[in-house]
This record gives sequence, C-alpha cells and structure tokens, in this order.
Amino acid sequence: MSIAILSSDKTDGSWFKALTDLAPDIAIEQWPNIDDAKRVEFALCWQHQPGTLLPMVNLRCICSMGAGIDHLLNDQQLPQGLPVVRLIDPLLCSSMFEYLLSAIMQQLRHWSHYRQQQRQESWTPRLTASIEQTKVGILGLGELGSYSAKRLAAIGFQLSGWSQSQKEIPGVASYRGDAELSAFIGEQDFIICLLPLTAKTDGILNHSLFQQMKAGSYLINVGRGGHVVEKDLLAALASGQLAGACLDVFQQEPLPSGHPFWRCDNLALTPHCSSITDPVSVAPQIIENYRRMQEGRPLVNEVDMKRGY
Amino acid sequence: MSIAILSSDKTDGSWFKALTDLAPDIAIEQWPNIDDAKRVEFALCWQHQPGTLLPMVNLRCICSMGAGIDHLLNDQQLPQGLPVVRLIDPLLCSSMFEYLLSAIMQQLRHWSHYRQQQRQESWTPRLTASIEQTKVGILGLGELGSYSAKRLAAIGFQLSGWSQSQKEIPGVASYRGDAELSAFIGEQDFIICLLPLTAKTDGILNHSLFQQMKAGSYLINVGRGGHVVEKDLLAALASGQLAGACLDVFQQEPLPSGHPFWRCDNLALTPHCSSITDPVSVAPQIIENYRRMQEGRPLVNEVDMKRGY
Repeated sequence: MSIAILSSDKTDGSWFKALTDLAPDIAIEQWPNIDDAKRVEFALCWQHQPGTLLPMVNLRCICSMGAGIDHLLNDQQLPQGLPVVRLIDPLLCSSMFEYLLSAIMQQLRHWSHYRQQQRQESWTPRLTASIEQTKVGILGLGELGSYSAKRLAAIGFQLSGWSQSQKEIPGVASYRGDAELSAFIGEQDFIICLLPLTAKTDGILNHSLFQQMKAGSYLINVGRGGHVVEKDLLAALASGQLAGACLDVFQQEPLPSGHPFWRCDNLALTPHCSSITDPVSVAPQIIENYRRMQEGRPLVNEVDMKRGY
Repeated sequence: MSIAILSSDKTDGSWFKALTDLAPDIAIEQWPNIDDAKRVEFALCWQHQPGTLLPMVNLRCICSMGAGIDHLLNDQQLPQGLPVVRLIDPLLCSSMFEYLLSAIMQQLRHWSHYRQQQRQESWTPRLTASIEQTKVGILGLGELGSYSAKRLAAIGFQLSGWSQSQKEIPGVASYRGDAELSAFIGEQDFIICLLPLTAKTDGILNHSLFQQMKAGSYLINVGRGGHVVEKDLLAALASGQLAGACLDVFQQEPLPSGHPFWRCDNLALTPHCSSITDPVSVAPQIIENYRRMQEGRPLVNEVDMKRGY
C-alpha cells in the first residue's frame, strides 16, 4: 500500500522528502517511477498527465497538491466516485495576503511609473491615494479570500467581498450572488479575483465586468487563468478603463513566448508565485488523511466535485 | 502684522489658501510679493532664498514648512536668536509609513525583477521571504520613525529602532547611541534612514556602515540626501553587498540629469514624494503658533537649533 506523487512540475523531490521524513513507515512513490501501480491507494496530484491514474485499480482517495482542484478536471479519465481532498496550507494564506499587499502598494505608490521615469531621467511626483481612502473588493471569500480580507482590513483598507453565500467577516462588507455582483464591482478601486474556477466563474473577468468597474481602477487576478477573457482585458487596458492589472495566473502556463501580455506596459506579470504550497507545511494533512482513509474515518478538507470547490 | 510664506518651490497657492481660509483676519503674504517686509512677524520657510528674511526687522518666529529644519541652515544670514518651530503633520506620518510599506513589499516580492523578466519574456519564479521572517531596522525614532515602526510591527515585521536616546515602543527593539549602532546595523534585512540631518548624521550612510550591513540587505533613505555618501552607495550596490536601495531624497533635488543613480538597475528612485506636508492639515498648527507668539505663550513643536531637531 502506498502514496503516489503525480505531478508534471513538482518534481524536485521536496514533496517526497517531506512525506518520508514525517512518515518513514509509509511507502511513497514518485511518478513516473511507480514500482507497482496496484499498491497505490492515495494519489497526490498536481497537473498530472491524463490517464496516469487508470492503472491504479486499488486507488481510494485523490488529493490535490494545492487549494484548487480544477486541474483534476483536465483528466477525462479521472477515476469517478472516489473522495477528492485538497490541501489548506496556513502559510499559503499568509503568502497570498503578502502578495496582494505588495501588488496593491506598488500600484498605490506608482512604483512602475517611477521605474519608467527613472529610465527617462524624469523627476515628476504623482499624487497618491492613502490606504484609508482605498476600496479593495475580493471576488471569492474562501480560505484565501477571507484571510486576505481580514489582514488588509486590519491595515486600514476599506474591504468588501463577494461570494455565492453571505459571509460574516468583521470589518468586511459582504455582497452575495449574481444580483449583488454589479453593485459590488462598481464601488472598488482594486478588484481581486480569488474565485475557484468552475463552469459558473469561467471567463467572469470579461468586457461586461470591466465596464462595470470604476474608471481607472485596478485588477489583480490570483485565481486561475480561465477567469480572464484575455482579449477583453487587453482592450480594457488599452482604453484606460482599467489603470492597470496584475496577473499571476494564465490560460497557459508558463505564459507562451510572443503572448501580447508580455509587452503590455500597464500589466504586471508574475510567474504563478503568489502562493506556493510548502510540502513541509502540508505533509501532516496528507498523512492524516491517508491514515483516516485506512481507518475508514471521515476525511479532512474533502471537496464537492459537483460544486467545484 | 503678517505671516509671510517664503519658499522657492511651494508656490502653487495652496498654502496661502489654506491659511486665509482658516484665519481670514490675519494678513498672509507670499514671497516674492511681500508688500511690507517690516510688517512680517512670522515667517513660514521651505528652501527659501538666502537673505530674504533680512528686511523683516520685526520678525519674531521662524517656522519650517515641514518636519526637517536643515534647509534653514542653508541661509547664512538667517536672523539669530529667534524661536524656530516645525510642523508635525499626522498625515505625514501615515503617508511615510505607506511609502515604507510599499518600498519593503516591492523588494520582498521582487517586483522590479519580475518587471525586467517581463521585458525578456522570462518565466522564473523566485523564492520569497515572509513578512514574519523579515527584520526591519529604523535609524531615527522621531515622530515619523516611531509611527512607522509601530505600524510595520503591527503587520508582523520584526522591528528594531536606533536613536540617540532610549525609546520605549511596544514591539520594537530599541538600540541607542554610537556604541550600539554596529550591533543594530548587522541584524537587519532592511535599514530605513529617518534621521534628522545634523553635523553628526551627515554622511552616516557610508562605506563603513554598508560593510556592517548584512550581505544582500536593502537600504531605504527617506531622511535627507546628505545622509548618503553617494560614491560609497554606488560601490556597495555594484559589489552586491547591498541587494538594492530605494532613495527618495538626494544631495541635489531634482536629481541632476546624467547622475549615475538614474542608470543604476538595483536602485529605485522616487522624486521626494514619500510624504508631502498637506497645507490644510497643518494650517491650524501654524495659526496656533502665530496666536501664541502674539500672546507671549509657549510655542508648539519648537526646535533646538543647536541639537538640529
């Protein structure tokens, strides 16, 4: 009986080491070197190669190696009917908050403008809005969204959040459902997307939403590349409807060479680094669920695959 | 009897308007259009032209239009023996804190590296330190330094401060005097200079201090240009002893065309915009001191010209 690590990009051995250090009694295997697929009961997956789970006929649980599970849906041959769990890393929450804080502050204090001015030897101070004057709205109040909202509100930003169900977070104005989306969007200086990627949220950052945003406001997407309609975003940036945008996720990653995003001046790009799950931090959760599975106890952080999160 | 505004760069009328709006009964004059120099009892100065106070034979008080008073010393003919006061703007404190937060966060999350990578179409995530792991040291725990230290500590940075006298700020380790400077400097990931410019602090950011800094640490100067020995800083940046620096103040402002700072890649420059005194916010302090002066009561925020702050 074993745990298998199946990922096309998390291959540096850090996950293998974190798990064997914590539970030397459990056999851990790393794709593509699976000794015996029939022994695998627990599959850790991140952007795994479609079909690779098929030979694992005794599989009893699938675990995403991150907070999102949309990548599992890329595998049309994913075994059906098995429980799916995901990882909630407390460090993931603080790393995401710190990324968002840095993205907001660099825009508020005009760092990319001053960088450009520096190249032109130009000395031109710009007006700045204060933290207290700045309205930040978060689309999606799951683990990462709620945590970031609380921390940003504590610093003094005016925080609002939008989600499917009403959320009670002290200091954060809550909007819910399709009916309140437009009112929420029109109020914000910064819109942050932290939604899960589902059939309902696919392409939600599109022309219609950009038109409802405050003129000159700023978009930060740390959800998934699929949330953005790329040509609509390029148009909103070109027209000035958005002052700028910061993207950490893309339809295709790494962002392909020659993509127009690379050359867009009021777009700040980062290589999907807003928050990276730390194997050492989440290894206890993985081993806990492996033991619960063996003992037939309820799993932690189980996902509703129909709902998509 | 009148208040005169004497500044070579704050000439947009906003100070005149803020004062006349608040105290329409007091005569306000703006250099160079001084109707009667003999009427001037109270001089508001910022980088004023040397010698312009000489005809004001009935002058009773000099007020700096900012927190610093070093610019007054540029006038060798400054009338001696008069009380000198400065302005403490509460908005100045929060604006300074927000600038520092943005400068630290852009370095922690590698914004300038990612900007460069974007121009090269390069997708290379970098390791990041967390806020909790980051040690920030502030040189100078006056109004701006103490306030910024408190706010940064509240976000989770490990804060230390250095000043001439021991300061008690909750959550901020305090170092004092020349004897503890070296121990303080060697501990920090970020060194922020918020010292007043005095004979003692002139050129304090020099080769010897840079050598005592942690290898790969980062300097932020928001004090005065005179604190930095420019050639020493360029050498420390070129050698990699400092990972980078952020400068908001310079020996000569605006920074002259052709200055090597403009072309230094690991240097972030801003045009003295970290915090700008808001005339509306400080007008009550000015009027208060004018009335106290007339009534012979003690002045607010009086400066010890010998000490230099």
